[in-house]
Amino acid sequence: MALKLYGLPMSTNTTRAIICLHEKEVDFELVPVNVFTAEHKQPPFLSKNPFGLIPVLEDGELILFESRAITAYVAEKFKETGPDLIRHKDVKEGALVKVWTEVEAHYYEPAVSPIIYEHFVAPFQGKEPDKSVIDTNVEKLKKVLDVYEEKLSSTKYLAGDFYSLADLSHVSETHYLMQTPCASMINERPHVKAWWEDISSRPAFSKVEPGMTFGKNQE
Amino acid sequence: MALKLYGLPMSTNTTRAIICLHEKEVDFELVPVNVFTAEHKQPPFLSKNPFGLIPVLEDGELILFESRAITAYVAEKFKETGPDLIRHKDVKEGALVKVWTEVEAHYYEPAVSPIIYEHFVAPFQGKEPDKSVIDTNVEKLKKVLDVYEEKLSSTKYLAGDFYSLADLSHVSETHYLMQTPCASMINERPHVKAWWEDISSRPAFSKVEPGMTFGKNQE
Repeated sequence: MALKLYGLPMSTNTTRAIICLHEKEVDFELVPVNVFTAEHKQPPFLSKNPFGLIPVLEDGELILFESRAITAYVAEKFKETGPDLIRHKDVKEGALVKVWTEVEAHYYEPAVSPIIYEHFVAPFQGKEPDKSVIDTNVEKLKKVLDVYEEKLSSTKYLAGDFYSLADLSHVSETHYLMQTPCASMINERPHVKAWWEDISSRPAFSKVEPGMTFGKNQE
Repeated sequence: MALKLYGLPMSTNTTRAIICLHEKEVDFELVPVNVFTAEHKQPPFLSKNPFGLIPVLEDGELILFESRAITAYVAEKFKETGPDLIRHKDVKEGALVKVWTEVEAHYYEPAVSPIIYEHFVAPFQGKEPDKSVIDTNVEKLKKVLDVYEEKLSSTKYLAGDFYSLADLSHVSETHYLMQTPCASMINERPHVKAWWEDISSRPAFSKVEPGMTFGKNQE
């Protein structure tokens, strides 16, 4: 039975899971969730994820939520297929993958997400982007990207000289970030820029990119 | 060579790592970091963690930061010692451990941490606790604890009927939460209360509890 992923291709968290499924060449069915009618906040969906957020992965009777737990599961279950995203044969490399996956979750995404929100979601909701929110998070993001630039000057990818879940975790939110004026923050850091060009040109991402249309709908 | 953990026993993130090391019966040296003189924001420490935060784990040449990456590494490296915190023999149980560890990191801790800050850190800095910050996060925490109460009515621990990294991750911040009026939020939910009494009575936590003195210093 194919895996089922509940979510939306334009959502960064859903896309994080989809990219991982594509990297691992896993057959899955994408089940759309209508977040605009708050389908994810109502009982049938809440029985899958009591926190009412997408994505959710169903693998038979196993139900998982939280995109980074989903990608870790997919990378572990299908560790022999496609690139080894968790370095399962080397506990030390695997630990570095976890470190930089945590960095994405606790430093990078919390700075990028409000920037994306103000640029894409606020206008969609008929609001003016809040410049002070953008400015605050640009400052946070600068500090994070300075660390990345230094790290990526010594290793090709974040956890080492191998593409991993840590890099993959960044792709979907950075895709939207690159459609804002903050793209310059990536482009002006040569090692970060080379890293982004590398991880965004992988076939697994090419398959989801056309669906990442948030921001294009309202034009 | 013993592992070295850089941090402070009163810090919740350091304690998360220490509890895990004790659960796994791992010999380690705690190297104190003077955060009050900003030792963690200066070059010698920044070479270990460029984000300037405790804890940091050194295992020979391997340097890890981010407490949840450290606990995952310790639980994996010493998987045959002490309780199996990651369910390494069962990929589905292991996935559920990851789900609920993510829940702690993305829902529970972000609500608990500001409450602890306002109750303990603000007075320490000579500031009045900000009641609106507390109220906002109490509302968030209520919703999270309602999900926990439901979950813990069907399984003894968060990821299933086994103690895991998911439960362990909650201990240090909940210890401080229980010293605030918000303790009632735990105590009035019978399954959450029983769970807390269980996970806080483990020997591994008893060893670190005397060092968790933040809030006691200023009395």
